[in-house]
Amino acid sequence: MNNDFPKNIAILGVGLLGASIGRGLLRRKCVEKVVGWGRNEEKLALAKKLNAVTDFTDDLRAAVKDVELVVVCTPVGMIAELVRQTAEFAPAGTLFTDVGSTKTAVSRGLEESPPGNRCRFLGGHPISGKADHSLEASDGELFAGKVAVLTPIFGTSAEDVGRLTRFWETLGSRVFCMSPEEHDAALARTSHFPHVLACVLAKVVPPELYPLAGTGFGSVSRPASGNVAVWKDILLENADAVRESLETAASEINILADVLRRRDAEALEKFLEAAKENRDRF
Amino acid sequence: MNNDFPKNIAILGVGLLGASIGRGLLRRKCVEKVVGWGRNEEKLALAKKLNAVTDFTDDLRAAVKDVELVVVCTPVGMIAELVRQTAEFAPAGTLFTDVGSTKTAVSRGLEESPPGNRCRFLGGHPISGKADHSLEASDGELFAGKVAVLTPIFGTSAEDVGRLTRFWETLGSRVFCMSPEEHDAALARTSHFPHVLACVLAKVVPPELYPLAGTGFGSVSRPASGNVAVWKDILLENADAVRESLETAASEINILADVLRRRDAEALEKFLEAAKENRDRF
Repeated sequence: MNNDFPKNIAILGVGLLGASIGRGLLRRKCVEKVVGWGRNEEKLALAKKLNAVTDFTDDLRAAVKDVELVVVCTPVGMIAELVRQTAEFAPAGTLFTDVGSTKTAVSRGLEESPPGNRCRFLGGHPISGKADHSLEASDGELFAGKVAVLTPIFGTSAEDVGRLTRFWETLGSRVFCMSPEEHDAALARTSHFPHVLACVLAKVVPPELYPLAGTGFGSVSRPASGNVAVWKDILLENADAVRESLETAASEINILADVLRRRDAEALEKFLEAAKENRDRF
Repeated sequence: MNNDFPKNIAILGVGLLGASIGRGLLRRKCVEKVVGWGRNEEKLALAKKLNAVTDFTDDLRAAVKDVELVVVCTPVGMIAELVRQTAEFAPAGTLFTDVGSTKTAVSRGLEESPPGNRCRFLGGHPISGKADHSLEASDGELFAGKVAVLTPIFGTSAEDVGRLTRFWETLGSRVFCMSPEEHDAALARTSHFPHVLACVLAKVVPPELYPLAGTGFGSVSRPASGNVAVWKDILLENADAVRESLETAASEINILADVLRRRDAEALEKFLEAAKENRDRF
Protein backbone atom coordinates (compact mmCIF):
# COMPACT_ATOMS: atom_id res chain seq x y z
CA MET A 1 0.00 0.00 0.00
CA ASN A 2 1.51 3.30 -1.02
CA ASN A 3 0.20 6.81 -0.55
CA ASP A 4 -2.62 6.16 -2.99
CA PHE A 5 -5.98 5.02 -1.83
CA PRO A 6 -6.12 1.25 -1.22
CA LYS A 7 -7.50 -0.62 -4.22
CA ASN A 8 -8.57 -3.76 -2.38
CA ILE A 9 -10.08 -3.74 1.06
CA ALA A 10 -11.72 -6.27 3.32
CA ILE A 11 -14.63 -5.48 5.59
CA LEU A 12 -15.04 -7.90 8.46
CA GLY A 13 -18.68 -7.78 9.54
CA VAL A 14 -21.30 -6.35 7.19
CA GLY A 15 -23.81 -4.69 9.52
CA LEU A 16 -24.87 -1.04 9.37
CA LEU A 17 -21.35 0.41 9.52
CA GLY A 18 -19.46 -2.17 7.46
CA ALA A 19 -22.02 -2.11 4.67
CA SER A 20 -22.28 1.69 4.72
CA ILE A 21 -18.50 1.95 4.28
CA GLY A 22 -18.61 -0.48 1.37
CA ARG A 23 -21.52 1.32 -0.29
CA GLY A 24 -19.88 4.72 0.20
CA LEU A 25 -16.53 3.58 -1.28
CA LEU A 26 -18.05 1.70 -4.20
CA ARG A 27 -20.47 4.49 -5.04
CA ARG A 28 -17.51 6.87 -5.12
CA LYS A 29 -15.61 4.40 -7.33
CA CYS A 30 -12.44 4.82 -5.27
CA VAL A 31 -11.77 1.12 -4.63
CA GLU A 32 -11.75 -1.84 -6.99
CA LYS A 33 -12.54 -4.69 -4.67
CA VAL A 34 -14.38 -4.81 -1.36
CA VAL A 35 -14.42 -8.27 0.17
CA GLY A 36 -17.10 -8.80 2.81
CA TRP A 37 -16.47 -11.39 5.47
CA GLY A 38 -19.01 -12.70 7.94
CA ARG A 39 -20.60 -15.86 9.24
CA ASN A 40 -24.05 -15.45 7.72
CA GLU A 41 -24.08 -16.29 4.00
CA GLU A 42 -27.53 -14.74 3.43
CA LYS A 43 -26.40 -11.45 4.95
CA LEU A 44 -23.26 -11.47 2.80
CA ALA A 45 -25.33 -12.11 -0.33
CA LEU A 46 -27.62 -9.23 0.58
CA ALA A 47 -24.56 -6.98 1.11
CA LYS A 48 -23.46 -7.81 -2.43
CA LYS A 49 -26.96 -7.10 -3.75
CA LEU A 50 -26.86 -3.72 -2.00
CA ASN A 51 -23.50 -2.99 -3.68
CA ALA A 52 -21.80 -2.86 -0.29
CA VAL A 53 -19.22 -5.50 -1.32
CA THR A 54 -17.92 -6.80 -4.63
CA ASP A 55 -17.02 -10.23 -3.23
CA PHE A 56 -17.86 -12.16 -0.11
CA THR A 57 -16.76 -15.22 1.80
CA ASP A 58 -17.05 -16.81 5.23
CA ASP A 59 -13.40 -17.88 5.01
CA LEU A 60 -11.16 -15.40 6.79
CA ARG A 61 -8.03 -16.51 4.93
CA ALA A 62 -9.67 -15.99 1.53
CA ALA A 63 -11.16 -12.66 2.62
CA VAL A 64 -7.85 -10.92 3.24
CA LYS A 65 -5.40 -12.70 0.99
CA ASP A 66 -4.66 -9.75 -1.32
CA VAL A 67 -6.05 -6.69 0.49
CA GLU A 68 -4.25 -3.48 1.46
CA LEU A 69 -6.61 -2.45 4.26
CA VAL A 70 -8.79 -4.41 6.65
CA VAL A 71 -11.69 -2.62 8.33
CA VAL A 72 -13.07 -4.53 11.30
CA CYS A 73 -16.77 -3.77 11.80
CA THR A 74 -17.72 -6.41 14.33
CA PRO A 75 -18.96 -5.78 17.90
CA VAL A 76 -16.17 -4.26 19.98
CA GLY A 77 -15.78 -7.32 22.20
CA MET A 78 -14.22 -9.39 19.40
CA ILE A 79 -12.13 -6.84 17.49
CA ALA A 80 -8.69 -7.34 19.07
CA GLU A 81 -8.73 -11.10 18.75
CA LEU A 82 -10.05 -10.95 15.18
CA VAL A 83 -7.24 -8.55 14.19
CA ARG A 84 -4.60 -10.92 15.60
CA GLN A 85 -6.15 -13.92 13.90
CA THR A 86 -6.61 -12.19 10.54
CA ALA A 87 -3.12 -10.70 10.48
CA GLU A 88 -1.69 -14.19 9.96
CA PHE A 89 -3.57 -14.53 6.67
CA ALA A 90 -3.16 -10.99 5.31
CA PRO A 91 -0.25 -9.74 3.20
CA ALA A 92 2.69 -8.77 5.43
CA GLY A 93 2.41 -5.21 6.75
CA THR A 94 -1.33 -4.79 6.10
CA LEU A 95 -3.00 -1.88 7.89
CA PHE A 96 -5.98 -2.72 10.11
CA THR A 97 -8.56 -0.34 11.45
CA ASP A 98 -11.96 -0.65 13.11
CA VAL A 99 -15.16 1.31 13.73
CA GLY A 100 -15.73 0.38 17.37
CA SER A 101 -17.42 2.85 19.71
CA THR A 102 -14.79 2.38 22.41
CA LYS A 103 -11.09 2.56 21.70
CA THR A 104 -8.95 2.04 24.80
CA ALA A 105 -9.39 -1.68 25.38
CA VAL A 106 -8.85 -2.57 21.71
CA SER A 107 -5.95 -0.17 21.09
CA ARG A 108 -4.08 -0.96 24.30
CA GLY A 109 -4.85 -4.65 23.99
CA LEU A 110 -3.31 -4.71 20.52
CA GLU A 111 -0.38 -2.60 21.75
CA GLU A 112 0.41 -5.13 24.47
CA SER A 113 -0.18 -8.15 22.34
CA PRO A 114 0.19 -6.93 18.75
CA PRO A 115 -0.81 -8.70 15.54
CA GLY A 116 1.95 -10.66 13.82
CA ASN A 117 3.13 -10.56 10.25
CA ARG A 118 4.21 -6.88 10.61
CA CYS A 119 0.56 -5.82 10.48
CA ARG A 120 -0.43 -2.50 12.15
CA PHE A 121 -3.63 -1.41 13.84
CA LEU A 122 -4.91 2.17 14.04
CA GLY A 123 -8.29 2.52 15.72
CA GLY A 124 -11.11 4.55 14.21
CA HIS A 125 -14.62 5.56 15.15
CA PRO A 126 -17.12 7.19 12.81
CA ILE A 127 -19.57 9.17 14.93
CA SER A 128 -22.56 8.43 12.80
CA GLY A 129 -24.92 5.97 14.33
CA LYS A 130 -28.48 4.96 13.70
CA ALA A 131 -30.92 3.25 16.02
CA ASP A 132 -31.25 0.53 13.41
CA HIS A 133 -27.93 -1.36 13.31
CA SER A 134 -28.96 -3.65 10.48
CA LEU A 135 -27.37 -4.19 7.08
CA GLU A 136 -30.70 -3.13 5.55
CA ALA A 137 -30.32 0.34 7.12
CA SER A 138 -26.88 0.85 5.56
CA ASP A 139 -26.30 3.98 3.53
CA GLY A 140 -23.30 5.10 1.50
CA GLU A 141 -23.85 8.66 2.76
CA LEU A 142 -24.04 7.69 6.44
CA PHE A 143 -20.66 9.33 7.13
CA ALA A 144 -21.12 12.45 5.04
CA GLY A 145 -20.96 15.63 7.10
CA LYS A 146 -20.12 13.65 10.26
CA VAL A 147 -17.01 13.33 12.40
CA ALA A 148 -14.66 10.34 12.36
CA VAL A 149 -12.08 9.90 15.11
CA LEU A 150 -8.69 8.23 14.73
CA THR A 151 -6.85 7.16 17.87
CA PRO A 152 -3.10 7.00 17.18
CA ILE A 153 -0.83 5.78 19.98
CA PHE A 154 2.92 5.57 20.53
CA GLY A 155 4.28 3.84 17.43
CA THR A 156 1.53 4.88 15.01
CA SER A 157 3.08 6.38 11.87
CA ALA A 158 1.96 9.70 10.47
CA GLU A 159 1.62 7.87 7.16
CA ASP A 160 -1.06 5.56 8.55
CA VAL A 161 -2.86 8.51 10.10
CA GLY A 162 -2.77 10.17 6.66
CA ARG A 163 -4.10 7.06 4.95
CA LEU A 164 -7.06 6.65 7.25
CA THR A 165 -7.71 10.39 7.25
CA ARG A 166 -8.09 10.20 3.44
CA PHE A 167 -10.24 7.09 3.88
CA TRP A 168 -12.77 8.89 6.09
CA GLU A 169 -12.57 12.16 4.20
CA THR A 170 -13.42 10.26 1.04
CA LEU A 171 -16.59 9.09 2.77
CA GLY A 172 -17.42 12.71 3.62
CA SER A 173 -16.28 12.87 7.25
CA ARG A 174 -14.23 15.43 9.12
CA VAL A 175 -11.39 13.66 10.95
CA PHE A 176 -10.24 14.28 14.53
CA CYS A 177 -7.22 12.61 16.16
CA MET A 178 -6.88 11.91 19.87
CA SER A 179 -5.66 9.21 22.24
CA PRO A 180 -7.92 6.19 22.82
CA GLU A 181 -8.31 7.32 26.43
CA GLU A 182 -9.39 10.84 25.46
CA HIS A 183 -11.81 9.37 22.95
CA ASP A 184 -13.40 7.07 25.50
CA ALA A 185 -13.67 9.78 28.14
CA ALA A 186 -15.37 12.11 25.67
CA LEU A 187 -17.65 9.48 24.16
CA ALA A 188 -18.67 8.30 27.62
CA ARG A 189 -20.18 11.75 28.05
CA THR A 190 -21.46 12.47 24.53
CA SER A 191 -22.78 9.03 23.64
CA HIS A 192 -22.68 6.23 26.19
CA PHE A 193 -24.06 8.26 29.07
CA PRO A 194 -26.99 9.68 27.03
CA HIS A 195 -27.75 6.12 25.97
CA VAL A 196 -28.02 4.99 29.59
CA LEU A 197 -30.22 8.00 30.44
CA ALA A 198 -32.56 7.07 27.59
CA CYS A 199 -32.72 3.51 28.92
CA VAL A 200 -33.39 4.67 32.49
CA LEU A 201 -36.31 6.72 31.19
CA ALA A 202 -37.66 3.85 29.09
CA LYS A 203 -37.34 1.49 32.03
CA VAL A 204 -39.06 3.63 34.67
CA VAL A 205 -42.02 4.87 32.57
CA PRO A 206 -44.36 1.92 31.99
CA PRO A 207 -45.92 1.52 28.50
CA GLU A 208 -49.40 1.85 30.07
CA LEU A 209 -48.63 5.58 30.30
CA TYR A 210 -47.56 5.92 26.65
CA PRO A 211 -50.92 7.37 25.55
CA LEU A 212 -49.94 10.36 27.71
CA ALA A 213 -46.40 10.58 26.38
CA GLY A 214 -45.57 13.11 23.69
CA THR A 215 -42.67 14.13 21.52
CA GLY A 216 -40.42 14.92 24.51
CA PHE A 217 -40.61 11.37 25.82
CA GLY A 218 -40.17 10.01 22.31
CA SER A 219 -37.04 12.02 21.76
CA VAL A 220 -35.38 11.42 25.13
CA SER A 221 -36.09 7.67 25.18
CA ARG A 222 -35.34 6.98 21.48
CA PRO A 223 -31.85 5.42 21.87
CA ALA A 224 -33.27 2.79 24.27
CA SER A 225 -34.47 0.85 21.21
CA GLY A 226 -30.86 0.31 20.15
CA ASN A 227 -29.20 -3.09 19.83
CA VAL A 228 -28.73 -4.65 23.28
CA ALA A 229 -25.65 -6.75 22.42
CA VAL A 230 -23.85 -3.79 20.84
CA TRP A 231 -24.56 -1.48 23.75
CA LYS A 232 -23.74 -4.06 26.39
CA ASP A 233 -20.26 -4.40 24.86
CA ILE A 234 -19.79 -0.63 24.62
CA LEU A 235 -20.85 0.04 28.21
CA LEU A 236 -18.70 -2.76 29.60
CA GLU A 237 -15.62 -1.67 27.63
CA ASN A 238 -16.02 1.92 28.80
CA ALA A 239 -17.50 1.10 32.20
CA ASP A 240 -15.39 3.40 34.37
CA ALA A 241 -15.87 6.54 32.29
CA VAL A 242 -19.60 5.92 31.90
CA ARG A 243 -19.89 5.32 35.62
CA GLU A 244 -18.30 8.72 36.30
CA SER A 245 -20.89 10.44 34.11
CA LEU A 246 -23.68 8.51 35.82
CA GLU A 247 -22.41 9.60 39.22
CA THR A 248 -22.32 13.23 38.05
CA ALA A 249 -25.86 12.85 36.71
CA ALA A 250 -27.12 11.27 39.93
CA SER A 251 -25.76 14.14 41.95
CA GLU A 252 -27.24 16.73 39.54
CA ILE A 253 -30.58 14.93 39.81
CA ASN A 254 -30.41 14.91 43.60
CA ILE A 255 -29.68 18.63 43.62
CA LEU A 256 -32.66 19.16 41.31
CA ALA A 257 -34.90 17.04 43.52
CA ASP A 258 -33.91 19.26 46.41
CA VAL A 259 -34.56 22.41 44.36
CA LEU A 260 -38.07 21.10 43.68
CA ARG A 261 -38.58 20.16 47.32
CA ARG A 262 -37.75 23.75 48.32
CA ARG A 263 -39.75 25.18 45.37
CA ASP A 264 -36.61 27.21 44.62
CA ALA A 265 -37.75 29.06 41.48
CA GLU A 266 -34.49 30.93 41.07
CA ALA A 267 -32.26 27.85 41.22
CA LEU A 268 -34.63 26.01 38.88
CA GLU A 269 -34.51 28.82 36.35
CA LYS A 270 -30.71 28.91 36.50
CA PHE A 271 -30.57 25.18 35.86
CA LEU A 272 -32.98 25.34 32.90
CA GLU A 273 -31.12 28.31 31.45
CA ALA A 274 -27.71 26.66 31.73
CA ALA A 275 -29.07 23.57 29.97
CA LYS A 276 -30.74 25.62 27.23
CA GLU A 277 -27.69 27.77 26.67
CA ASN A 278 -25.60 24.66 26.04
CA ARG A 279 -28.17 22.80 23.95
CA ASP A 280 -28.89 25.79 21.72
CA ARG A 281 -25.27 25.52 20.55
CA PHE A 282 -25.72 21.96 19.32
CA MET B 1 -74.11 27.57 24.79
CA ASN B 2 -76.20 24.56 23.86
CA ASN B 3 -75.12 21.13 22.66
CA ASP B 4 -73.96 22.57 19.38
CA PHE B 5 -70.39 23.60 18.84
CA PRO B 6 -69.66 27.09 20.21
CA LYS B 7 -69.91 29.73 17.49
CA ASN B 8 -67.81 32.38 19.22
CA ILE B 9 -64.74 31.60 21.25
CA ALA B 10 -62.01 33.62 22.88
CA ILE B 11 -58.40 32.48 23.05
CA LEU B 12 -56.40 34.14 25.81
CA GLY B 13 -52.76 33.99 24.80
CA VAL B 14 -51.83 33.37 21.17
CA GLY B 15 -48.60 31.36 21.37
CA LEU B 16 -48.04 27.96 19.81
CA LEU B 17 -51.08 26.28 21.38
CA GLY B 18 -53.57 29.15 21.28
CA ALA B 19 -52.80 29.95 17.67
CA SER B 20 -52.83 26.29 16.65
CA ILE B 21 -56.31 25.89 18.16
CA GLY B 22 -57.55 28.97 16.30
CA ARG B 23 -56.04 27.83 13.01
CA GLY B 24 -57.44 24.32 13.42
CA LEU B 25 -60.96 25.55 14.19
CA LEU B 26 -61.04 28.21 11.49
CA ARG B 27 -59.60 25.87 8.87
CA ARG B 28 -62.36 23.38 9.72
CA LYS B 29 -64.93 26.19 9.51
CA CYS B 30 -66.60 25.08 12.72
CA VAL B 31 -66.58 28.44 14.50
CA GLU B 32 -67.60 31.87 13.32
CA LYS B 33 -65.52 34.09 15.53
CA VAL B 34 -62.24 33.52 17.32
CA VAL B 35 -61.17 36.50 19.40
CA GLY B 36 -57.50 36.54 20.30
CA TRP B 37 -56.48 38.35 23.47
CA GLY B 38 -52.95 39.18 24.51
CA ARG B 39 -50.68 42.01 25.54
CA ASN B 40 -48.56 42.23 22.43
CA GLU B 41 -50.37 43.94 19.56
CA GLU B 42 -47.83 42.83 16.95
CA LYS B 43 -48.25 39.21 17.96
CA LEU B 44 -52.03 39.54 17.81
CA ALA B 45 -51.84 41.08 14.34
CA LEU B 46 -49.61 38.22 13.19
CA ALA B 47 -52.11 35.73 14.64
CA LYS B 48 -54.79 37.31 12.51
CA LYS B 49 -52.55 37.19 9.44
CA LEU B 50 -51.97 33.47 10.10
CA ASN B 51 -55.75 32.97 10.26
CA ALA B 52 -55.49 31.90 13.89
CA VAL B 53 -58.04 34.52 15.01
CA THR B 54 -60.77 36.51 13.29
CA ASP B 55 -60.56 39.41 15.76
CA PHE B 56 -58.11 40.57 18.36
CA THR B 57 -57.84 42.95 21.25
CA ASP B 58 -55.72 43.67 24.30
CA ASP B 59 -58.88 44.52 26.26
CA LEU B 60 -60.06 41.52 28.27
CA ARG B 61 -63.60 42.86 28.61
CA ALA B 62 -64.00 43.32 24.86
CA ALA B 63 -62.39 39.92 24.15
CA VAL B 64 -65.02 37.85 25.95
CA LYS B 65 -68.14 39.96 25.80
CA ASP B 66 -70.21 37.63 23.55
CA VAL B 67 -68.30 34.33 23.59
CA GLU B 68 -69.56 30.87 24.50
CA LEU B 69 -66.18 29.34 25.33
CA VAL B 70 -62.94 30.81 26.67
CA VAL B 71 -59.72 28.85 26.10
CA VAL B 72 -56.88 30.04 28.33
CA CYS B 73 -53.52 29.42 26.64
CA THR B 74 -51.20 31.43 28.90
CA PRO B 75 -48.36 30.00 31.02
CA VAL B 76 -49.82 27.82 33.81
CA GLY B 77 -48.80 30.19 36.60
CA MET B 78 -51.40 32.80 35.61
CA ILE B 79 -54.35 30.65 34.46
CA ALA B 80 -56.47 30.54 37.65
CA GLU B 81 -56.31 34.26 38.29
CA LEU B 82 -57.03 35.08 34.66
CA VAL B 83 -60.11 32.82 34.68
CA ARG B 84 -61.48 34.57 37.78
CA GLN B 85 -60.80 37.99 36.32
CA THR B 86 -62.24 37.20 32.90
CA ALA B 87 -65.39 35.53 34.27
CA GLU B 88 -66.61 38.93 35.44
CA PHE B 89 -66.67 40.21 31.85
CA ALA B 90 -67.98 37.10 30.07
CA PRO B 91 -71.66 36.23 29.53
CA ALA B 92 -73.07 34.52 32.63
CA GLY B 93 -72.42 30.78 32.68
CA THR B 94 -69.58 30.79 30.14
CA LEU B 95 -67.44 27.66 30.03
CA PHE B 96 -63.70 28.14 30.53
CA THR B 97 -60.97 25.65 29.73
CA ASP B 98 -57.19 25.77 29.41
CA VAL B 99 -54.28 23.94 27.80
CA GLY B 100 -51.88 23.94 30.75
CA SER B 101 -49.39 21.11 31.19
CA THR B 102 -50.22 20.72 34.88
CA LYS B 103 -53.76 20.45 36.14
CA THR B 104 -53.98 20.05 39.91
CA ALA B 105 -53.03 23.53 41.09
CA VAL B 106 -55.31 25.27 38.57
CA SER B 107 -58.29 22.91 38.95
CA ARG B 108 -58.17 22.75 42.73
CA GLY B 109 -57.42 26.45 43.00
CA LEU B 110 -60.51 27.27 40.97
CA GLU B 111 -62.54 24.73 42.95
CA GLU B 112 -61.61 26.44 46.21
CA SER B 113 -61.99 29.93 44.91
CA PRO B 114 -64.26 29.61 41.85
CA PRO B 115 -64.90 32.19 39.15
CA GLY B 116 -68.00 34.34 39.63
CA ASN B 117 -70.87 35.04 37.27
CA ARG B 118 -71.85 31.32 37.21
CA CYS B 119 -68.89 30.58 34.97
CA ARG B 120 -67.43 27.04 35.01
CA PHE B 121 -63.91 25.76 34.50
CA LEU B 122 -62.95 22.34 33.12
CA GLY B 123 -59.23 21.81 32.68
CA GLY B 124 -57.74 20.44 29.48
CA HIS B 125 -54.31 19.46 28.21
CA PRO B 126 -53.49 18.62 24.60
CA ILE B 127 -50.44 16.34 24.59
CA SER B 128 -48.93 17.76 21.47
CA GLY B 129 -45.96 19.95 22.13
CA LYS B 130 -43.17 21.32 20.06
CA ALA B 131 -39.77 22.55 21.15
CA ASP B 132 -40.64 25.87 19.49
CA HIS B 133 -43.40 27.48 21.57
CA SER B 134 -43.81 30.47 19.29
CA LEU B 135 -46.84 31.71 17.42
CA GLU B 136 -44.85 31.32 14.21
CA ALA B 137 -44.63 27.55 14.83
CA SER B 138 -48.42 27.21 15.17
CA ASP B 139 -50.16 24.63 13.03
CA GLY B 140 -53.86 23.83 12.64
CA GLU B 141 -52.99 20.13 12.51
CA LEU B 142 -50.88 20.18 15.69
CA PHE B 143 -53.53 18.20 17.58
CA ALA B 144 -54.43 15.72 14.84
CA GLY B 145 -53.73 12.15 15.86
CA LYS B 146 -52.69 13.23 19.37
CA VAL B 147 -54.25 12.79 22.80
CA ALA B 148 -56.06 15.54 24.71
CA VAL B 149 -56.83 15.08 28.41
CA LEU B 150 -59.82 16.57 30.25
CA THR B 151 -59.68 16.68 34.04
CA PRO B 152 -63.25 16.76 35.43
CA ILE B 153 -63.65 17.08 39.21
CA PHE B 154 -66.55 16.93 41.63
CA GLY B 155 -69.18 19.25 40.21
CA THR B 156 -68.15 19.03 36.55
CA SER B 157 -71.20 18.27 34.38
CA ALA B 158 -71.20 15.47 31.84
CA GLU B 159 -72.47 18.08 29.41
CA ASP B 160 -69.30 20.17 29.75
CA VAL B 161 -67.18 17.04 29.36
CA GLY B 162 -69.13 16.30 26.18
CA ARG B 163 -68.67 19.81 24.86
CA LEU B 164 -64.90 19.84 25.34
CA THR B 165 -64.63 16.27 24.06
CA ARG B 166 -66.25 17.41 20.81
CA PHE B 167 -63.95 20.45 20.81
CA TRP B 168 -60.78 18.34 20.88
CA GLU B 169 -62.15 15.64 18.63
CA THR B 170 -62.90 18.33 16.06
CA LEU B 171 -59.22 19.23 16.16
CA GLY B 172 -58.34 15.59 15.52
CA SER B 173 -57.45 14.46 19.05
CA ARG B 174 -58.44 11.37 21.00
CA VAL B 175 -59.79 12.45 24.41
CA PHE B 176 -58.98 10.87 27.79
CA CYS B 177 -60.64 11.88 31.10
CA MET B 178 -58.96 11.61 34.49
CA SER B 179 -58.59 13.54 37.73
CA PRO B 180 -56.14 16.47 37.79
CA GLU B 181 -54.05 14.50 40.28
CA GLU B 182 -53.87 11.41 38.05
CA HIS B 183 -53.00 13.62 35.12
CA ASP B 184 -50.16 15.31 36.96
CA ALA B 185 -48.76 12.05 38.32
CA ALA B 186 -48.76 10.53 34.83
CA LEU B 187 -47.38 13.62 33.09
CA ALA B 188 -44.65 13.97 35.69
CA ARG B 189 -43.39 10.63 34.41
CA THR B 190 -44.13 10.89 30.69
CA SER B 191 -43.23 14.54 30.13
CA HIS B 192 -41.79 16.60 32.99
CA PHE B 193 -39.28 14.00 34.14
CA PRO B 194 -37.92 13.36 30.61
CA HIS B 195 -37.56 17.12 30.25
CA VAL B 196 -35.39 17.31 33.35
CA LEU B 197 -33.28 14.35 32.18
CA ALA B 198 -32.68 16.12 28.87
CA CYS B 199 -31.61 19.24 30.77
CA VAL B 200 -29.29 17.28 33.07
CA LEU B 201 -27.61 15.83 30.00
CA ALA B 202 -27.32 19.22 28.30
CA LYS B 203 -25.93 20.74 31.48
CA VAL B 204 -23.25 18.12 32.21
CA VAL B 205 -21.88 17.67 28.68
CA PRO B 206 -19.99 20.84 27.72
CA PRO B 207 -20.38 22.21 24.17
CA GLU B 208 -16.63 21.73 23.60
CA LEU B 209 -17.45 18.03 23.25
CA TYR B 210 -20.26 18.54 20.71
CA PRO B 211 -18.06 17.64 17.72
CA LEU B 212 -17.97 14.16 19.24
CA ALA B 213 -21.72 14.01 19.91
CA GLY B 214 -23.98 12.20 17.49
CA THR B 215 -27.66 11.54 16.94
CA GLY B 216 -28.10 9.87 20.34
CA PHE B 217 -26.99 12.98 22.21
CA GLY B 218 -29.10 15.14 19.91
CA SER B 219 -32.21 13.12 20.56
CA VAL B 220 -31.85 12.74 24.32
CA SER B 221 -30.94 16.39 24.93
CA ARG B 222 -33.42 17.94 22.45
CA PRO B 223 -36.09 19.12 24.96
CA ALA B 224 -33.47 21.15 26.85
CA SER B 225 -33.88 23.86 24.20
CA GLY B 226 -37.47 24.38 25.33
CA ASN B 227 -38.82 27.64 26.75
CA VAL B 228 -37.34 28.25 30.22
CA ALA B 229 -40.28 30.27 31.62
CA VAL B 230 -42.84 27.70 30.48
CA TRP B 231 -40.90 24.79 31.93
CA LYS B 232 -40.07 26.54 35.18
CA ASP B 233 -43.81 27.01 35.79
CA ILE B 234 -44.61 23.41 34.89
CA LEU B 235 -41.91 21.94 37.12
CA LEU B 236 -42.83 24.15 40.08
CA GLU B 237 -46.54 23.38 39.76
CA ASN B 238 -45.86 19.64 39.62
CA ALA B 239 -42.79 19.68 41.86
CA ASP B 240 -43.67 16.76 44.14
CA ALA B 241 -44.55 14.30 41.41
CA VAL B 242 -41.50 15.26 39.34
CA ARG B 243 -39.30 14.91 42.41
CA GLU B 244 -40.56 11.34 42.91
CA SER B 245 -39.58 10.43 39.34
CA LEU B 246 -36.19 12.04 39.83
CA GLU B 247 -35.60 10.05 42.99
CA THR B 248 -36.54 6.84 41.16
CA ALA B 249 -34.17 7.79 38.34
CA ALA B 250 -31.32 8.60 40.73
CA SER B 251 -31.67 5.23 42.40
CA GLU B 252 -31.80 3.43 38.99
CA ILE B 253 -28.69 5.35 37.96
CA ASN B 254 -26.89 4.40 41.15
CA ILE B 255 -27.77 0.75 40.61
CA LEU B 256 -26.43 1.02 37.06
CA ALA B 257 -23.24 2.68 38.27
CA ASP B 258 -22.76 -0.26 40.59
CA VAL B 259 -23.47 -2.75 37.78
CA LEU B 260 -20.73 -1.06 35.76
CA ARG B 261 -18.36 -1.04 38.75
CA ARG B 262 -18.83 -4.80 39.06
CA ARG B 263 -18.71 -5.31 35.25
CA ASP B 264 -21.92 -7.31 35.74
CA ALA B 265 -22.69 -8.22 32.11
CA GLU B 266 -25.82 -10.16 32.97
CA ALA B 267 -27.44 -7.38 35.00
CA LEU B 268 -26.48 -4.83 32.34
CA GLU B 269 -28.06 -6.95 29.61
CA LYS B 270 -31.26 -7.33 31.64
CA PHE B 271 -31.45 -3.58 32.13
CA LEU B 272 -30.90 -2.81 28.43
CA GLU B 273 -33.44 -5.46 27.45
CA ALA B 274 -36.11 -4.17 29.83
CA ALA B 275 -35.63 -0.66 28.48
CA LYS B 276 -35.74 -1.81 24.86
CA GLU B 277 -38.80 -3.97 25.41
CA ASN B 278 -40.69 -0.96 26.74
CA ARG B 279 -39.43 1.53 24.17
CA ASP B 280 -40.16 -0.74 21.24
CA ARG B 281 -43.84 -0.42 22.16
CA PHE B 282 -43.83 3.35 21.83
